[in-house]
Amino acid sequence: MRNTWEYFSTKNIIFGNGAIQKIDGILRRFNAKNVFIITDQGIVQTGILEKVLQYLKLHRYQCVVYDQATPEPPISSVMEAYDFAQGENNTDVIIGLGGGSSIDLAKVVALLMEHGGHPRNYFEEGNVPGPIAPLIAIPTTAGTGSEVTSVAVVNDTDNDLKVGISDNYLRPAVALLDPKLTIGLPPYVTACSGIDALSHAIESYTALEYKHIKASEDILFQGSFPITDALALKAIELIYENLVLAVHQGSNLEARASMLAGSVLAGMAFSNAGNALGHALAYPIGGKVKSPHGEITGLLLPYVMRYNLSTSKNKMTKIAQVFELNGGKHAAKDVELSPADAVQQLVKDIGLPTKLSTIGIKEEELQEISNKTLHIERLIRNNPRNPREEDLVALLKRAY
Amino acid sequence: MRNTWEYFSTKNIIFGNGAIQKIDGILRRFNAKNVFIITDQGIVQTGILEKVLQYLKLHRYQCVVYDQATPEPPISSVMEAYDFAQGENNTDVIIGLGGGSSIDLAKVVALLMEHGGHPRNYFEEGNVPGPIAPLIAIPTTAGTGSEVTSVAVVNDTDNDLKVGISDNYLRPAVALLDPKLTIGLPPYVTACSGIDALSHAIESYTALEYKHIKASEDILFQGSFPITDALALKAIELIYENLVLAVHQGSNLEARASMLAGSVLAGMAFSNAGNALGHALAYPIGGKVKSPHGEITGLLLPYVMRYNLSTSKNKMTKIAQVFELNGGKHAAKDVELSPADAVQQLVKDIGLPTKLSTIGIKEEELQEISNKTLHIERLIRNNPRNPREEDLVALLKRAY
Repeated sequence: MRNTWEYFSTKNIIFGNGAIQKIDGILRRFNAKNVFIITDQGIVQTGILEKVLQYLKLHRYQCVVYDQATPEPPISSVMEAYDFAQGENNTDVIIGLGGGSSIDLAKVVALLMEHGGHPRNYFEEGNVPGPIAPLIAIPTTAGTGSEVTSVAVVNDTDNDLKVGISDNYLRPAVALLDPKLTIGLPPYVTACSGIDALSHAIESYTALEYKHIKASEDILFQGSFPITDALALKAIELIYENLVLAVHQGSNLEARASMLAGSVLAGMAFSNAGNALGHALAYPIGGKVKSPHGEITGLLLPYVMRYNLSTSKNKMTKIAQVFELNGGKHAAKDVELSPADAVQQLVKDIGLPTKLSTIGIKEEELQEISNKTLHIERLIRNNPRNPREEDLVALLKRAY
Repeated sequence: MRNTWEYFSTKNIIFGNGAIQKIDGILRRFNAKNVFIITDQGIVQTGILEKVLQYLKLHRYQCVVYDQATPEPPISSVMEAYDFAQGENNTDVIIGLGGGSSIDLAKVVALLMEHGGHPRNYFEEGNVPGPIAPLIAIPTTAGTGSEVTSVAVVNDTDNDLKVGISDNYLRPAVALLDPKLTIGLPPYVTACSGIDALSHAIESYTALEYKHIKASEDILFQGSFPITDALALKAIELIYENLVLAVHQGSNLEARASMLAGSVLAGMAFSNAGNALGHALAYPIGGKVKSPHGEITGLLLPYVMRYNLSTSKNKMTKIAQVFELNGGKHAAKDVELSPADAVQQLVKDIGLPTKLSTIGIKEEELQEISNKTLHIERLIRNNPRNPREEDLVALLKRAY
């Protein structure tokens, strides 16, 4: 039995419409003059980069931009951005501007700038020796929560591996969230990233309590505890109430703001409590099909919730209460499968698939997926119900 | 209308039975060798200091102890501790061990060690120029939340003023919370500090939403926003369910742990959202009688909740839901005064007074108290209902 939990947090989160205008005040706290921005072509094309650069130049910062971030950045891209940053003199602060990939890339560059070496040196948990270079994360999607998390996903293409570098030192120093930057996000991206945020919130809320996690060493994903419970439940509320609106009325600023708040709260929760079975299943499935990560985690979420129901009755009841199912009554007997059903309805309402067969998974792959899933120990041990291989096969067949 | 909120947090919170044994690992992150401990005579007498010193000496840290912290430490005590710290070579880390006063004192000493000068230089908000010396806060009461907050209260005895130094840089770098350290706390101290934590949680939860706070500059107490709502509501649940147990069964470790978790969550919430009318009223009352701060804020809380009910219906309903009043139903019409009544019953159950007349306030002082309260702008502007002087007199008469 574990006795302690340890909560890590980005020290400073700034949120609001027009928050981007606070960038000068934030950079001053770092005594910054030279800023290195990491972003992607989407952000260039939508004009968001230009807008940010305007504020920076207005206040006379020297800016260098690397705008070639790609989804799940390959190591070659990390090294390219790192070389670029080194070529410049005296970068004081790095800004990661964009979706999870731009921010993840910025995290790894900030890591290398401070500690040198190669990304492969840091694949093992606990290998980051100290704080990384000052990093301000500015997300333009409401999903990964990368602006506050301890994880950066990179693609080790030489070894055909998607790898997470995970360490509490990887959390950005500042998360700057401006809902207006998410207005232009297309419905499909809004749907995939938003349902992924909901799966972060629900998986970390229903994660096994920290006391019962089977691990003796210091771990990043520690199971649920009061702070993560509080943040995750609020995230569930914000996302559930606003995702359909944000997808179908992209310019609804209030829905966009609630989604962005929901995803940052979910990030604060899951980067301490950890995700569980849904994300564990999503990794081997993600290796077989091209679907975006959120499409897969969203598809799986209701099936995992049904599987976990028997061991998570109290928490599922609280979710039902937040969803205001059954006319707001929250007697356990009334809710049985309702929160899972409600999530499945939500997945349909935002136009995402609800069956594995429709995204290109073959039935004969279900066994292998189940087997691989069981090896992702840091997520499996976090799940409230301890799955055997046959349980997972049965779950995947229901989702097929 | 304000557009943004800004959330600040202690980067690292460690919690659990026996968490004190993690002190070595924490000090290593700071490369510390020389530790300066600030504590009080109570902690010396209960043997808690000795226990902490044992762990530190086992790992060969050089320790210097200042054990003369007193409630609401006078400036003379700050300067004495500061001189003491300067006399030693190379203090790497300061530990504040004890109730809110020891931790507040440690904050101010850490501030002077880094930036020099005199406490009076920092009375004005925003005057702290940068991070303070590394500070680990180890609370032994469940109440003030000082281990995570941005505030230190000192007593300017020369000018007969109780002053808060407030700045986000004042947050300790690490909060280390071990429920076992709170086991020996006497029932009356448990009651006063616990009900103060509940008042932090309820006042910040029901604080006016950040958008509507009337202030143009950057402010510390910003009104409620999603992160503070999440933390405060969970704190309300933890404290409401465990305070009576913690008072009457002092050795109930589970109740003690929930109280300590509740008070740290309340600290995270109120140090961003801010307290409101209850605390504003408590300051002038505290100037007139010797009652502990928590006795006064607890006494006032139900009266303030009733006064605020008309403008806080939704949030009071959620509190009623958390309290599981009315058989768990949470239709607004059912709850009317119930959460306030439940809090008043709680105050009685833990043996604290519910009337101002019983703590030594005189009826002819109510007008003056009301008038002084209205001048505490940072708390008054945070209240969901904007009070006039006659409202406050009427409220205080009900509480008399």
